[in-house]
Amino acid sequence: MTEETSSFGTMHLTKSRLESLSDGIFAFAMTLLVISINLPDKSRIVQSQAYATHLILSLYSDFFHYVLAFLILGAFWLSHHIMIHPVKTLDRIFIWLNLGTLLFVSLLPFSTSFAGDFPDTSLGAIVFEANLLAIGLGMFCQWKYATSSHRLVGAELPDEFIRHVALGTLVVPGISFLGILIALTGNLYSQAVYLMLPFVGFLLHHYHRNDRVSSA
Amino acid sequence: MTEETSSFGTMHLTKSRLESLSDGIFAFAMTLLVISINLPDKSRIVQSQAYATHLILSLYSDFFHYVLAFLILGAFWLSHHIMIHPVKTLDRIFIWLNLGTLLFVSLLPFSTSFAGDFPDTSLGAIVFEANLLAIGLGMFCQWKYATSSHRLVGAELPDEFIRHVALGTLVVPGISFLGILIALTGNLYSQAVYLMLPFVGFLLHHYHRNDRVSSA
Amino acid sequence: MTEETSSFGTMHLTKSRLESLSDGIFAFAMTLLVISINLPDKSRIVQSQAYATHLILSLYSDFFHYVLAFLILGAFWLSHHIMIHPVKTLDRIFIWLNLGTLLFVSLLPFSTSFAGDFPDTSLGAIVFEANLLAIGLGMFCQWKYATSSHRLVGAELPDEFIRHVALGTLVVPGISFLGILIALTGNLYSQAVYLMLPFVGFLLHHYHRNDRVSSA
Amino acid sequence: MTEETSSFGTMHLTKSRLESLSDGIFAFAMTLLVISINLPDKSRIVQSQAYATHLILSLYSDFFHYVLAFLILGAFWLSHHIMIHPVKTLDRIFIWLNLGTLLFVSLLPFSTSFAGDFPDTSLGAIVFEANLLAIGLGMFCQWKYATSSHRLVGAELPDEFIRHVALGTLVVPGISFLGILIALTGNLYSQAVYLMLPFVGFLLHHYHRNDRVSSA
Repeated sequence: MTEETSSFGTMHLTKSRLESLSDGIFAFAMTLLVISINLPDKSRIVQSQAYATHLILSLYSDFFHYVLAFLILGAFWLSHHIMIHPVKTLDRIFIWLNLGTLLFVSLLPFSTSFAGDFPDTSLGAIVFEANLLAIGLGMFCQWKYATSSHRLVGAELPDEFIRHVALGTLVVPGISFLGILIALTGNLYSQAVYLMLPFVGFLLHHYHRNDRVSSA
Repeated sequence: MTEETSSFGTMHLTKSRLESLSDGIFAFAMTLLVISINLPDKSRIVQSQAYATHLILSLYSDFFHYVLAFLILGAFWLSHHIMIHPVKTLDRIFIWLNLGTLLFVSLLPFSTSFAGDFPDTSLGAIVFEANLLAIGLGMFCQWKYATSSHRLVGAELPDEFIRHVALGTLVVPGISFLGILIALTGNLYSQAVYLMLPFVGFLLHHYHRNDRVSSA
Repeated sequence: MTEETSSFGTMHLTKSRLESLSDGIFAFAMTLLVISINLPDKSRIVQSQAYATHLILSLYSDFFHYVLAFLILGAFWLSHHIMIHPVKTLDRIFIWLNLGTLLFVSLLPFSTSFAGDFPDTSLGAIVFEANLLAIGLGMFCQWKYATSSHRLVGAELPDEFIRHVALGTLVVPGISFLGILIALTGNLYSQAVYLMLPFVGFLLHHYHRNDRVSSA
Repeated sequence: MTEETSSFGTMHLTKSRLESLSDGIFAFAMTLLVISINLPDKSRIVQSQAYATHLILSLYSDFFHYVLAFLILGAFWLSHHIMIHPVKTLDRIFIWLNLGTLLFVSLLPFSTSFAGDFPDTSLGAIVFEANLLAIGLGMFCQWKYATSSHRLVGAELPDEFIRHVALGTLVVPGISFLGILIALTGNLYSQAVYLMLPFVGFLLHHYHRNDRVSSA
């Protein structure tokens, strides 16, 4: 009798609980991002319209990274659910791959803060991009592990769907890798690569639809 | 075969999961508001009753904005649930409209902190009011998108209910718009407009009841 | 047709959603309490065993208030569940009483931080005790509103249970009121009154058991 | 009639609610750990690649403790679920043992921050290790209380499973105790003991499997 089939083994960690911890960490990390927009200490605040205007304008880099990080985490959260839905059983390795990915999700408020604090160096952008690269690779590994030889998913899951989701998890890492390359050349606006995301997302979606129609 | 009807498409993102992420972000943003009431660094604290009294009184603007923001977020959370209940299916656009709204929910602790830090400038109030305006408009867009031609709601949902909820989501944005106008004249107490909220809420509720009785 | 019985009214806010928001706010507030134990800015930290020892000992007041606040919030969370279980329907007033209570739950990390920062003034203790008083009174009001003429609870709910829960919600406010009185005399250790909590809790529990046996 | 069997007693606190509060506190504490990686105040930041590189390298101790604390909390969360699954009824003592354990879970962001701030003193490591020791002992006590004479678990739960889980909850406390002993000798790298965790985990898992096979 293997532990996996035993009624008192680790399998009691149901999918719903893993999803609930993951949802919690995604929601908190997305909300905690706001801490990266930091106001100066109260004692240094001057009560004038000019100072207030200057302050809010000086936060442009913080705002930009906040919006970017929030929306990309939203996209990852969406992927996480599309990905975890067809998973039928859990094992320890999958759970640890998921926890490892969440470690980088929960690190994003730091990287966002760091990138917002260093708008004029390429290292700020690289740390931010490397963090997103790590989340995306973590999700790719989870999916590969779950679907290779249909390990944790049903046998009826079409290979075409498996390939499509795998491709989807690689979009953000791919763009992040491109961003890191650009940043390494000393360019300070490498984060602009993420503006490609909606277009790549649309193309992938469109290609997937055509692929399915043609294979139907 | 369109993706929407496919059994392996994005529709696996069930409503319950969207609600759970939304509830998490609402609850967390409401709790994080408390961070906007900031105490000075410990090294600058003087251990005297007079200093402690002075400090707590000097936080009046922080407290006022905390209470206001908490209760208005509570009202938005209530609207969110009334609104999402009749939604029967989800599509990508609706999910992104929801995430876009949550982006502004999660930004509110920043705006609240900013408004509390600048009680003597009108910009503080404007940032706070603009943030609430954005949340309300986001919710209005979600509802419009979901109900126009009964896109995501059942055909049996009465038009009168659709109009009533749409009107409800416009109350806070309308009052916020008024507040911004007042603040632009240089008035420093424009946030007082939100004291109208309970009365407008009551009127709307009352009008809705009469409307329903007369149409019965 | 009243809105309360209508199928598109506010009643769609199910109890489970209210509990989920409440659980979220309780869990976050309990975790956020840890922020009240504040370490000095990194630039002022000296890397020596003596300094580290001195620092951790100087936090005694922060630790004491953290433990106190965490356990009392735990007790309130327990009461909240005992209280909300027999509630059968929700109305707007009950929801707003609940949100008003949560406003003070979510404020507790501030009061705890304030009390920890002012161990040598009675105002620190008073703010902390007043916050707990407010949470307890909020819960008492919710319960009174829900049970008076069995408004939101089933007719079969025994009066004896209603009285017992009402008494239970008054324990923390009562002790807090006592603490405030003591603090007003200038005593700096008024928080010691909360050490009575386990004993009062035990007595109440015991009295309730006897009461039920004798009425059986 | 004892309260435990009464239909209006404390038993209304269902297991699902306790799990939901616990999941929330675990998820939030894991996300809040990121706050322990602290960036300097914006006014002291220099916009140069050299400063940014220096800064990120100087955070090595913060990163190390973040990763360690995140993964160990993940392991505790896993244990919590394995442990709570066979529990059939709840009583007040079990709930308070659980809340007491969560008090230390929620304290971990502080200890992690403290340990990261004092890489060059053994006290930093001791505080961190003592915190993990307390969480583990708390979980051991919960399990002992629940299973002794099968108090809260079903009679059919095999003794072998009870012993295995008890042993599992003692792994982190045991290693932490070892770490404290090493730190007390003045060694500054005592946290390295946690690198044993995966191996001990694997051995325990393996031994459990063999044990079960041989007893089958």
